[in-house]
Amino acid sequence: MKILQLFSYISTLLATSQVPDLHIPNQIHLHLPDLHIPNQIHFLRPLSGAGLQDIPGLSCSSWRLAVETNNIIGWETVPEECANYVGHYMLGQQYRDDSKVVADQALLHTNSINLAGDGKEIWVFDVDETTLSNLPYYATHGFGTTPYNSTAFNEWVEEGKAPALPESLALYKNLLSLGIKIVFLTGRLEDQRNATAANLKNVGYHTWEKLILKDSSYSGKTAVAYKSSERKKLEEDGYRIIGNMGDQWSDLLGTNTGNRTFKLPDPMYYIS
Amino acid sequence: MKILQLFSYISTLLATSQVPDLHIPNQIHLHLPDLHIPNQIHFLRPLSGAGLQDIPGLSCSSWRLAVETNNIIGWETVPEECANYVGHYMLGQQYRDDSKVVADQALLHTNSINLAGDGKEIWVFDVDETTLSNLPYYATHGFGTTPYNSTAFNEWVEEGKAPALPESLALYKNLLSLGIKIVFLTGRLEDQRNATAANLKNVGYHTWEKLILKDSSYSGKTAVAYKSSERKKLEEDGYRIIGNMGDQWSDLLGTNTGNRTFKLPDPMYYIS
Repeated sequence: MKILQLFSYISTLLATSQVPDLHIPNQIHLHLPDLHIPNQIHFLRPLSGAGLQDIPGLSCSSWRLAVETNNIIGWETVPEECANYVGHYMLGQQYRDDSKVVADQALLHTNSINLAGDGKEIWVFDVDETTLSNLPYYATHGFGTTPYNSTAFNEWVEEGKAPALPESLALYKNLLSLGIKIVFLTGRLEDQRNATAANLKNVGYHTWEKLILKDSSYSGKTAVAYKSSERKKLEEDGYRIIGNMGDQWSDLLGTNTGNRTFKLPDPMYYIS
Repeated sequence: MKILQLFSYISTLLATSQVPDLHIPNQIHLHLPDLHIPNQIHFLRPLSGAGLQDIPGLSCSSWRLAVETNNIIGWETVPEECANYVGHYMLGQQYRDDSKVVADQALLHTNSINLAGDGKEIWVFDVDETTLSNLPYYATHGFGTTPYNSTAFNEWVEEGKAPALPESLALYKNLLSLGIKIVFLTGRLEDQRNATAANLKNVGYHTWEKLILKDSSYSGKTAVAYKSSERKKLEEDGYRIIGNMGDQWSDLLGTNTGNRTFKLPDPMYYIS
């Protein structure tokens, strides 16, 4: 089935720490048209050079920067004009490079701290687009250009097939080796616990202190409120948050945000 | 004097809302080698395509994104390898496009608010790299690759020759027309008041509610502490901060940050 080829391709991308092929202009174009997948990647034609140039007058890279800096908030879909741009970005080396710089800074930060090693030092990781990557899903759902489809997305979650974001997995291993405990704090719902736990374990996240999913008491609350409240409980339980990493500003704003926050890139969707 | 030619060139760039020439690859290269200025802009050769590509393995664009998202903090100089990249960025269309998206979002935000029109609604603007641009200075001082030189920079400030950042000036005018009052809150020192006020007026910022400069009581305090304290005083005086805009995260973090914050790009320096 063709979609499995795409899945396999993306998994390979995510499983390797370098994707040297993608340095070559038009490489995506050369690789992917064969796949004939429903949401055809060959629409992702490079616009010029390495494919991250803007269409004159549109500046999708300005849009992306404004999203990443939280200047554009509450948006529902990626602008149609930026579909190619976002697809290229997510499948290309830039997304990986951008993620790696964040993970590197997170490790530098942790290494700069005098750790107590008392078992109360934790790192808070978001799940989607932070520790797990839903790129195989989004690659067949318009890279964020179409409205969020909870039915389709929840089916994908239940499959438990999301690959790890390699930079976050490497950071996770480094944090564990420093004696820091891991807390996953996700907007996924409580009834997705088994699928999420199995998925995390399958891709290399073998251990954690807590896996916190959104229970029904938070229904209708924002992610900022939910996550702040859960981090507050962690601190009340004596945990100290050494670092807090997510792809959404709602992972990082609010209260009890931790010693430092780290924003991973995500130009595909926005969660308040 | 050659440096005046550069100054004039940059002023022209900043004075026009579009710089269509710079869409053409190598245009900077074609324009500037003639100038023979001390810090030669022809070192800013495009690396490929439109000149915003990375040197493979270095990813200056990842560095810039991490700076803009506050993932890299407390840095002292731009990495030497990114000198060309940052120079290109600052002199090219991308910086202008990035600034415009932020200003556009700021205006959208303001238009979405039911304004009371009671004269207590204010907009807080930082000055350097927000309302005024020191690009003519930084273009001859390595675009942030050399350590901050307070003597040279203060001489530049005293000249009062900084052009307006056009996107911020346009926003300023729109805000005034909506009845919002302007507060400039800057890390420039109290003894730079006259030069700063004259510079602001000369480039089009003709009126304001307050121009707050850092007085000696804040000496040794961080920008976050100083600016939070001054915003707190504003709110205690009954002002409501509709928006707060700066190029540094230290303009936007802390307390009393306002209804919404807007981060303008600045890959040249970092202020804690």
